[in-house]
Amino acid sequence: MTEEKPVKKIEELGSSIVTEIKGGRNPRFITLARTRSNVIFDQKKGYLKLGSAKEERNFLNVSQSKRFMQTMAIAAKCHRFVKENLHTTIRGLFYQLKFSLGEDIDENVFSEQAESNPLIEDLEVSLGLKRENLNLNANRKGVLAGNMKIIDTFGEEKIEIDCSKQGRSGWAIPSDVDNDIEFVNVKAKYVLVVEKDALWQRLNEDLFWKKENCILMTPQGQAARGTRRLIKKLADKGLPVYVFTDSDAWGWYIYWTIKTGSINLAYIGEDVATPSAKFLGVTMSDLDKYDFLNKLTINASEIDLKRAQEMLNYEWIGKYKEWKVELERMIKSKKKLEQDALQGPRLTFVDDYIREKIKNKDYLP
Amino acid sequence: MTEEKPVKKIEELGSSIVTEIKGGRNPRFITLARTRSNVIFDQKKGYLKLGSAKEERNFLNVSQSKRFMQTMAIAAKCHRFVKENLHTTIRGLFYQLKFSLGEDIDENVFSEQAESNPLIEDLEVSLGLKRENLNLNANRKGVLAGNMKIIDTFGEEKIEIDCSKQGRSGWAIPSDVDNDIEFVNVKAKYVLVVEKDALWQRLNEDLFWKKENCILMTPQGQAARGTRRLIKKLADKGLPVYVFTDSDAWGWYIYWTIKTGSINLAYIGEDVATPSAKFLGVTMSDLDKYDFLNKLTINASEIDLKRAQEMLNYEWIGKYKEWKVELERMIKSKKKLEQDALQGPRLTFVDDYIREKIKNKDYLP
Repeated sequence: MTEEKPVKKIEELGSSIVTEIKGGRNPRFITLARTRSNVIFDQKKGYLKLGSAKEERNFLNVSQSKRFMQTMAIAAKCHRFVKENLHTTIRGLFYQLKFSLGEDIDENVFSEQAESNPLIEDLEVSLGLKRENLNLNANRKGVLAGNMKIIDTFGEEKIEIDCSKQGRSGWAIPSDVDNDIEFVNVKAKYVLVVEKDALWQRLNEDLFWKKENCILMTPQGQAARGTRRLIKKLADKGLPVYVFTDSDAWGWYIYWTIKTGSINLAYIGEDVATPSAKFLGVTMSDLDKYDFLNKLTINASEIDLKRAQEMLNYEWIGKYKEWKVELERMIKSKKKLEQDALQGPRLTFVDDYIREKIKNKDYLP
Repeated sequence: MTEEKPVKKIEELGSSIVTEIKGGRNPRFITLARTRSNVIFDQKKGYLKLGSAKEERNFLNVSQSKRFMQTMAIAAKCHRFVKENLHTTIRGLFYQLKFSLGEDIDENVFSEQAESNPLIEDLEVSLGLKRENLNLNANRKGVLAGNMKIIDTFGEEKIEIDCSKQGRSGWAIPSDVDNDIEFVNVKAKYVLVVEKDALWQRLNEDLFWKKENCILMTPQGQAARGTRRLIKKLADKGLPVYVFTDSDAWGWYIYWTIKTGSINLAYIGEDVATPSAKFLGVTMSDLDKYDFLNKLTINASEIDLKRAQEMLNYEWIGKYKEWKVELERMIKSKKKLEQDALQGPRLTFVDDYIREKIKNKDYLP
């Protein structure tokens, strides 16, 4: 996407407001409702998205006028960022607003990301753009290695980065993987997403990505927007995606967020969800296949057990009998299993485990 | 360091234990005490280190024998990791111990990093080695860009990474920056350490490191071991180090940890502290120099105020009158200032701020 489209869209929004004012009408701003009741699971496509319920914000409404004004101020700032071709974060944006609008901006309204996020999200939804197109960087996290090159147009140079030449570090996945960046020469056969950076380093040291010709990626815990988006983009290139996490509430949450998106990001569900992703492990049923793992389980926490029960109730998870078995087994045994446990017999056992799982197509939907 | 030295040192430890057993003596293991009372600030060198108090652990002592045995088991595992030339984490090590020693290893003793750390630290101190030499990776965090190259001997290849060609991502600082890795062609004139990744991205986009010829680094919050060690190594090459954080308790803590080391890592203080580091900003006294900042302060939290008071009492901080002024000003005004506030007037203002500070040598000790 070039800068023209976002600039044009923001200007159209501005013009429509001006037209309403000139016509003596109450200026309004319409967006999709991002309430829980308007988040739906698209059965056919396999991800969480927004329904059609709309939300209207009117300037001449005492309870809405402040937020209306703030949303317009944010749009104006983003318009400038895009024109200048400079990026910042919502924190940088907050300080620009405070600087321009002075003391009448209530610091507390913007001081928490949780409070300023909704206004940005309103804009994203209303304009049909992502914040990355408004030059607002989200937090980034995650690294990868593999047979792929990146062309990063940066500082007016085209920088080529070979993801098979990043050594012990890997390539750090940026906030924005769409604008002025291309993923080329993707020779890998699949994407392996490993929950923990520590295990990524273990597999990277074994050159697993080279031996197996995969993209070896870690989101370093829960996947950031940029990482989710990149997984989706690689899946769109036809690469199977396998996710490898702990067998616990947090690991499962990481997987399902990658696969179906999340309630919070339902408004960009199509862009960040990868419904074709499969769950490689570790699974509670690995305990039947690898006897030694039985002495390497640890106690599930109250949170694990509570979350497992909740997941059973999500229509898009509980419908799979394989997941029902997994979740119920943890609830019954009150035990969980970490991916690190696969290092028990020897450090390189984890490599063999993954190979065998993929060879046997032994993964969960 | 090659693998020979750690292997030899572990073997010497083993031999000495065997000799004691054969001689009918009580096997013992001696290390420096890592208690708070044995952490001292070396006035002359400017960092926190361990004093000379020793701690002895005897096998034939009911309260010590379990830990003694566990320490030996850890030493044996690390010996193997080094010989195999494979790395893992203390979590991987825990599972190896649990696998080998079976149910008699109490999971709870090792299940928390806080509980297993001390035994590794005992070994590090006792052997005069860092855990990186025992092939145990610590958590990693932090990225950099600048005129410097890295030769990373990885998978039997020598990979050259040009830190001026890493685009929007930067080079991810690894856990181990000592073994099989070299930093060459360091053409930068100084190191700028920026607390927040968001601001690092802002400065990287402006090619600040290129225009000013510096190494632009972010620890992404509190600096990990690898990042602290790398800062120290660059300082040893003669580069001035400037640290740029929020003016609050957390920002100050990040600075002082880089400069003087920390109580927790006092046992490797010499390797990770950079006493020559200077504090660039933001400072409470910036409020006198940049008038607009006065409307961009935010309220200090109770934690900020409490921590500021504690820092005044640390001999190595309170002794500086500049720091006394800073800390007291926050305590009195109950206000703090974030580095992001420098984006208030325009996104690139932060670049000018840093330039001016360095030009005028306007930093704190």
